Amino acid sequence: MDLLEIKDPGFLKNMTNSQLEGLSKEIRQFLIEKLSVTGGHIGPNLGVVELTLALHKCFDSPKDKMIWDVGHQSYVHKILTGRAGEFDTLRQYKGLCGFPKRNESEHDVWETGHSSTSLSAAMGMAIARDLKKEKSYILPIIGDGALTGGMALEALNHIGDEKKNMIVVLNDNEMSIAPNVGALHKVLGKLRTAGKYHWAKDELEYLLKKIPAVGGKLATTAERIKDSLKYFLVSGMFFEDLGFTYLGPVDGHNFEDLFENIQYAKKTEGPVLLHVLTKKGKGFDPAESDTVGTWHGTGPYKIDTGDLIKPVNAPPAWSKLVSETVRKLARTDERIVAITPAMPVGSKLEGFAQEFPDRMYDVGIAEQHAATVAAGLATQDMKPFLAIYSTFLQRAYDQVVHDICRQNLNVFIGIDRAGLVGADGETHQGVFDIAFLRHLPNMVLMMPKDENEGQHMVNTAIKYDAGPIAMRFPRGNGYGVPMDSSLKEIPIGSWEVLRKGTDAAILTFGTTIPMAMEAADQLESSGISVKVINARFIKPLDEKMLTELLSQEMPILTIEEAVLQGGFGSAVLEFAHDHGYHHAAIDRMGIPDCFIEHGSVGKLLEEIGLTSEQVALKIQTMTPKKQKRA
Amino acid sequence: MDLLEIKDPGFLKNMTNSQLEGLSKEIRQFLIEKLSVTGGHIGPNLGVVELTLALHKCFDSPKDKMIWDVGHQSYVHKILTGRAGEFDTLRQYKGLCGFPKRNESEHDVWETGHSSTSLSAAMGMAIARDLKKEKSYILPIIGDGALTGGMALEALNHIGDEKKNMIVVLNDNEMSIAPNVGALHKVLGKLRTAGKYHWAKDELEYLLKKIPAVGGKLATTAERIKDSLKYFLVSGMFFEDLGFTYLGPVDGHNFEDLFENIQYAKKTEGPVLLHVLTKKGKGFDPAESDTVGTWHGTGPYKIDTGDLIKPVNAPPAWSKLVSETVRKLARTDERIVAITPAMPVGSKLEGFAQEFPDRMYDVGIAEQHAATVAAGLATQDMKPFLAIYSTFLQRAYDQVVHDICRQNLNVFIGIDRAGLVGADGETHQGVFDIAFLRHLPNMVLMMPKDENEGQHMVNTAIKYDAGPIAMRFPRGNGYGVPMDSSLKEIPIGSWEVLRKGTDAAILTFGTTIPMAMEAADQLESSGISVKVINARFIKPLDEKMLTELLSQEMPILTIEEAVLQGGFGSAVLEFAHDHGYHHAAIDRMGIPDCFIEHGSVGKLLEEIGLTSEQVALKIQTMTPKKQKRA
Repeated sequence: MDLLEIKDPGFLKNMTNSQLEGLSKEIRQFLIEKLSVTGGHIGPNLGVVELTLALHKCFDSPKDKMIWDVGHQSYVHKILTGRAGEFDTLRQYKGLCGFPKRNESEHDVWETGHSSTSLSAAMGMAIARDLKKEKSYILPIIGDGALTGGMALEALNHIGDEKKNMIVVLNDNEMSIAPNVGALHKVLGKLRTAGKYHWAKDELEYLLKKIPAVGGKLATTAERIKDSLKYFLVSGMFFEDLGFTYLGPVDGHNFEDLFENIQYAKKTEGPVLLHVLTKKGKGFDPAESDTVGTWHGTGPYKIDTGDLIKPVNAPPAWSKLVSETVRKLARTDERIVAITPAMPVGSKLEGFAQEFPDRMYDVGIAEQHAATVAAGLATQDMKPFLAIYSTFLQRAYDQVVHDICRQNLNVFIGIDRAGLVGADGETHQGVFDIAFLRHLPNMVLMMPKDENEGQHMVNTAIKYDAGPIAMRFPRGNGYGVPMDSSLKEIPIGSWEVLRKGTDAAILTFGTTIPMAMEAADQLESSGISVKVINARFIKPLDEKMLTELLSQEMPILTIEEAVLQGGFGSAVLEFAHDHGYHHAAIDRMGIPDCFIEHGSVGKLLEEIGLTSEQVALKIQTMTPKKQKRA
Repeated sequence: MDLLEIKDPGFLKNMTNSQLEGLSKEIRQFLIEKLSVTGGHIGPNLGVVELTLALHKCFDSPKDKMIWDVGHQSYVHKILTGRAGEFDTLRQYKGLCGFPKRNESEHDVWETGHSSTSLSAAMGMAIARDLKKEKSYILPIIGDGALTGGMALEALNHIGDEKKNMIVVLNDNEMSIAPNVGALHKVLGKLRTAGKYHWAKDELEYLLKKIPAVGGKLATTAERIKDSLKYFLVSGMFFEDLGFTYLGPVDGHNFEDLFENIQYAKKTEGPVLLHVLTKKGKGFDPAESDTVGTWHGTGPYKIDTGDLIKPVNAPPAWSKLVSETVRKLARTDERIVAITPAMPVGSKLEGFAQEFPDRMYDVGIAEQHAATVAAGLATQDMKPFLAIYSTFLQRAYDQVVHDICRQNLNVFIGIDRAGLVGADGETHQGVFDIAFLRHLPNMVLMMPKDENEGQHMVNTAIKYDAGPIAMRFPRGNGYGVPMDSSLKEIPIGSWEVLRKGTDAAILTFGTTIPMAMEAADQLESSGISVKVINARFIKPLDEKMLTELLSQEMPILTIEEAVLQGGFGSAVLEFAHDHGYHHAAIDRMGIPDCFIEHGSVGKLLEEIGLTSEQVALKIQTMTPKKQKRA
């Protein structure tokens, strides 16, 4: 059938299993082709083709509510709800979002991007449904990796207790972004190989009769024998202990198996955990045989060879620069331990892990735990390196406040993907970190201008022993600048003059330095002389340099690829006013007070007005006298 | 013995059980007497007297590391480590902290205040110990309530998997701050009444022989039979599934039982979960018979009658005002659902719960889940009221960003205990909320000047349907102002002139309004006329009123009981500079860039310089011309 003609999933109701199998193949072909051009989360989506079809056949979306945890596995759902025609624009500016989006379709009832939120959302929806006395199924679909996130566990605990009707679909593919870790993962492992629980009901009765009477305190009630036998049969008491009816494991690529179990789940009162086994990347060899997470999300690729299309001779990725510098330092500094919340690949920690297997901990999708493990290490005079994306550090905010900053512990936080991240869009933009870290006592926050300064900053962070220190760095690659062979320490709180000038000063750092330099070049030709400062320390400020600028009454423009409220520019305003420079002409450029959707970083910066042209225009308005003269 | 003479816990080594029982009585007497004067966490500490003695007798602190989760139960530990003499100053300014504090004693190896951090900290310490090839026991002591916090569950998952040696002491008193909720609580309930696992080893073997051979797929390996029997015996597979050796349940008030199990735990390889049953408030009748949490933490009380000493005719508590106003509105607005993370008593939601049992959810210590349940409800056109303390909202920062603000959902967040909280000290001060909420798109943030405005603000928040709205309010009681009988809506973003003036303007809100008014009174007599504005909306600002002030070139002073960086004052600076008022003389008063320790709020404000005198002095420096004339 023509996928582009699908308007809503109603047509599935009358399809036979063999027709559905044919449709599955078409959808896989479609995804493999489309994503080879646009890139996207190919592995997770190929894994849930049959599952998504089965859910849409057995339930009535949007009355029944499908809540896609993390949401990168919602492409098949998007095809079935009339969005196949938009896949050429996937993850592009104003194009189809890579995650569920409520303004795209009434079938997207909950937006995601971060992990482990689906069960809590489902609980909220279930409470609402029951208060309104409505009838509907609520279907959070959560991966085995996301299940280890603390808030998912909080939710399991609450849902099991409240006995709300809901069907939690556990999409178990044995790995999320990287191979999963954790005891829960092992529990699932046992379940995968166990028999099917609900099929064993009769046999349970049979066994109950065969068991001998054992006296005394060891077997006082039939209930306990029954409980024990349930465990005996499936080793699946973990979820039953939490108040769920456990169903499974179900072959997630077999429609007969899926339908039978879904029907059983629909008839079951209270919360059900439907354990579905799927294979990530199913139907596309390179993705199916991936064992490390390369094919979780990719850029464009060649379908025939399965080769990722990568820029030739690209400078090293920022993540790699940082992790490899930490690795180099770890050779002589035994205190260093690396911690990642499920991002060993994204954070390029493979090399570190290989060289120092005892000093590298992937703690799973568990950002809170990751931050506090780092704090615990630091109390023992170790030097933890917490490798974490800016957007995921949000989830450890309280641990950074309460455990790290408050105890003033020597934790080095490497904040990856800081600033705009592009295609992943608004759930992943790393634009809040300055605003949520700058107000924390004891915190040092910095960002390098290029990868050479980056390596020195990593060294600075490792050597720093007066409390927490964080270095933010962008997604993507460096500039390919020459690298010093020996590592230096950069004085804490020191800025650097990159370009001299007399009419105005630009204070900026990291990714926005090039646009400042370009703007200064442009302005030079119109007779405006602009000083450009690499304000590499966001906290503490270079008070000496800033005081000098303020006392010269030079107009100051701050630029940051981060939210403006409470950001670096605000720090400059605060300093000026706190020190009596009430007449300072200070302007700020940065990210305005709205969420920034997906699109290429260049396009997004343009939309926001963060370009060298806009910087030049801004400086012109700040130097009106020079304007008139020019 | 004289508790004041204890220097370190070494003396316990040679004590007999009956001597220890005597000492327990003395310690209880000491605590009951001391806390009757100072107040403090009486219930939790009376519950852990024997447990703390047993741990300090069996282990060698500080080499062996005791990590007190939440930390309010560390008083006995403080007595045994030489701090009995400081109990008269408990929770007072510069006095003994109510939580573990590393600068108080080498025996306090980890600082707490927020819940559920101990297991992650223990994991960090265990990694460090093993890398350094040191030998020591690591002993997180965690309550059954704290165990439901997401980060504790993340940690359980990781610890069980890594098999690090550590003894997790589960202090199970069946309630934390309020009676516990959740499926895990029920799991513990089963365990409480089950037999003791390690005592049943022999019996297990006996049973193994008695069980009949059952053929086919149902019983393929001896391992599974064994697992099943373990479950059969104790129903305690939950923790064993997670990779822990489960020991217990142990009578936490019986030294013989404690010692036997602790010795067993010491000999066990890998992580142990030692399940200890204790009785909160043990030995003090009013606290022991408490079923709702009144005696969790208290002010002073009368020992003989067990009556709490409360101020006579105090105005209503802020928490009560807010919850009761929500309750009143809930009578006509069926969309309203209240959610609390384990604080039904603290948030005074008992009345609401009684009247609307189906519309009130205590989700346990699970702030992340609480926030996203609220978001889920809001997607279904309900009006969730999330009642949460400022300091605990920190733990749901990402959920507020990613689930509530990004989806622009109609969640009303009632931020209790905003500003300084006093005796609980630096882990509990509610001083970051403005800085961590103000930069979030779609957020409305407000604070009322008194309880009458408070009730109108609650009404405003409930009626507001354009996205998230938060009202912060302080700990403690209102002023006793007259209350309007009918509720009004306050226009979003509107400030109010409280006092006219021509020489300078003070912009402030909430608790700092009285000091601004007093300062204005003082200044009037020296000829300085100060305008005072109730800047009740922190976001959005009253742009019209602010523009008017700025265009009049009036010096502006902002005052806030919150951190200065990125706070309300910064918002005013940002607005002024963004709108071209570069010459505005704006000064800011608030909480400086450090953590604020415990002490009375009045004393703390004085130390920080937030007093009417300091405000008056500041205004004088801002109005030098008036000064000379006066």
